[in-house]
Amino acid sequence: MGQPHTGLQLRSLVRATGELELSLVDAALPEPGSGEIVVRIAATPINPSDIGLLFGAADMDTATFSGTRSRPVVTARVPERAMKSMAGRVDQSMPVGNEGAGVVIAAGSSPAAQALMGKTVATFGGGMYAQYRCLPIDQCLPLPEGATAADGASCFVNPLTALGMVETMRREAHSALVHTAAASNLGQMLQRICLQDGIHLVNIVRKPEQEALLRAMGATYVCNSSSPTFMDDLTDALAATGATIAFDATGGGKLAGQILTCMEAALNRSAKSYSRYGSATHKQIYVYGRLDPAPLELTGNFGMAWSVGGWLLFPFLQEIGADGGARLRARVARELKTTFASRYSKTVSLAGALSPESIAAYRRRATAGKYLIDPSLTD
Amino acid sequence: MGQPHTGLQLRSLVRATGELELSLVDAALPEPGSGEIVVRIAATPINPSDIGLLFGAADMDTATFSGTRSRPVVTARVPERAMKSMAGRVDQSMPVGNEGAGVVIAAGSSPAAQALMGKTVATFGGGMYAQYRCLPIDQCLPLPEGATAADGASCFVNPLTALGMVETMRREAHSALVHTAAASNLGQMLQRICLQDGIHLVNIVRKPEQEALLRAMGATYVCNSSSPTFMDDLTDALAATGATIAFDATGGGKLAGQILTCMEAALNRSAKSYSRYGSATHKQIYVYGRLDPAPLELTGNFGMAWSVGGWLLFPFLQEIGADGGARLRARVARELKTTFASRYSKTVSLAGALSPESIAAYRRRATAGKYLIDPSLTD
Repeated sequence: MGQPHTGLQLRSLVRATGELELSLVDAALPEPGSGEIVVRIAATPINPSDIGLLFGAADMDTATFSGTRSRPVVTARVPERAMKSMAGRVDQSMPVGNEGAGVVIAAGSSPAAQALMGKTVATFGGGMYAQYRCLPIDQCLPLPEGATAADGASCFVNPLTALGMVETMRREAHSALVHTAAASNLGQMLQRICLQDGIHLVNIVRKPEQEALLRAMGATYVCNSSSPTFMDDLTDALAATGATIAFDATGGGKLAGQILTCMEAALNRSAKSYSRYGSATHKQIYVYGRLDPAPLELTGNFGMAWSVGGWLLFPFLQEIGADGGARLRARVARELKTTFASRYSKTVSLAGALSPESIAAYRRRATAGKYLIDPSLTD
Repeated sequence: MGQPHTGLQLRSLVRATGELELSLVDAALPEPGSGEIVVRIAATPINPSDIGLLFGAADMDTATFSGTRSRPVVTARVPERAMKSMAGRVDQSMPVGNEGAGVVIAAGSSPAAQALMGKTVATFGGGMYAQYRCLPIDQCLPLPEGATAADGASCFVNPLTALGMVETMRREAHSALVHTAAASNLGQMLQRICLQDGIHLVNIVRKPEQEALLRAMGATYVCNSSSPTFMDDLTDALAATGATIAFDATGGGKLAGQILTCMEAALNRSAKSYSRYGSATHKQIYVYGRLDPAPLELTGNFGMAWSVGGWLLFPFLQEIGADGGARLRARVARELKTTFASRYSKTVSLAGALSPESIAAYRRRATAGKYLIDPSLTD
């Protein structure tokens, strides 16, 4: 069929005037270099981490929709006070989409690139909300026989993040862990990993149906933060598991402080003597998302041996090095349709991803509302 | 004169009924073991870290004063909601006072203990608000010739904390540091250390007179958090110094988040490309005090490469080991009357430390209001 010269690409632009514009553009497709391939993207998920780049600091309640059905344009206001945080991207039209999967339709001259021709691969590296993406072969993972692009679309961000949490827990000498927003696709993966590896996981959710979902998967410890007995439930679970590290997707509000407080209370159940500085056991919270835009508020009593900090996949992967990364990716490939399976509520075209209905749905970032884009759909 | 068998000791007791009681008791003095000495305490400071144990979670606005002039009794209410945090110390009468200094009046049989007889030593280990304290010789530092007990009274907590901050900065590969509540005795020591060692220090204070005090000492970077230009001033200072680690004595309110936000803004001044995760340079806040009892609220934009956590002297000393600790203590002894000199606003007896006027003064924890107890005073 010959290599196309241009392809549709979704772009996010924050103008200095304080306006966000989402649109589709015809982007030129480069010739692949020797170690590069061109992938015809067939499946690319809308992850929470994509939504941050997509919407920037815009207030999506102010969104207006124009353009045509096949070339929609979405505009929204960025509040004045938030423009400072946008300084680094102002007036740059940015491609979006951390990961995706599709078929290799062109390849550079190297044997390794040529070997991928016609194969279905998963890819990462940004700009995946596009019909075509040219990228180095080391940003690709050939999918096992029988796996579709949709099977492999989410095979980097969530699987490596979930594995990274377990790896970080081990590297920092904790023996069990806590996860918030635990009914998410990522949370379900983490529960499956922990069941398989025999690791105690304390899941924190907000709703009874999320608790039911995790329990049906085999989860032992699920605490509902909306329950009046939440603090006691969580302390019991922490005392039972000994978990002293948590990965928090909310990144705002009081949850991180509540977890620290309950960890401290659980540790103090077996304390031998009083120290006004609290337990000497280190309590760690890693914030890896920002589902709650409220300020992160640390209240409660958790002594002095604590830390709250950001956790990101790519710095973690750099830390564990190429061998560590390869080991994790190999596990993802092996267990793609089991441990690391993702579920989507809807598949849309590039244009469809910019419809009022789609944006209203995926901006809620609800467990059951994950969207997949198939750029080959013409709507 | 012979060794006394009992001595006055200040005690803090939180009863299960929710009442704090401060009083003086006659405590029996043990015979020193082979490697121990008995010190007649002549100077012991009231540090912020002592006030935490002294008052517990009591609301000192409810304090009532009874007893006699020489045996005062102070009682105050612990709010119901705060009793949980007191669980570890309920109904235990606790001695108070982290550090002090005085003359060795009795010694165990070991030559090392005997060698200290009659010497003026600084000591740490709790229970220093007392006429006499028996303790192992490795918790003592013989003071240099000509140094009084008052000179050596504060020679552990503040000096080792200030040196520990600089040491932590180096060990974690930062090249400059930030300090809050910077006009404190500790802050002044830190400024003197940094001037001597050629380290850039960004001081944060709340009042113009504190700024003037530090500038008069030779401080280059002093930012007043009450100034309307605080965020800009701090960002400028951080850009000039490259400081990416801060030690925060306030531990509550918005200051930690403001520092992170300004660090990020300073780093982004030289950023080459946009990342929605912010600068990849790690930004560290260590909370070592709790001058502000408000919740610690992290707001602002500081990307994902950050951490906020507790920092305590004793775990730090364990981390650097015996040799590291000895090196720091040797420097303190050498520079006792210069770099590590402390100033006190008032010297009181043990009974005087429990007077309404004293408590009203030192519970404010003001820079100019540091109290010294001399247990040999009879009032």
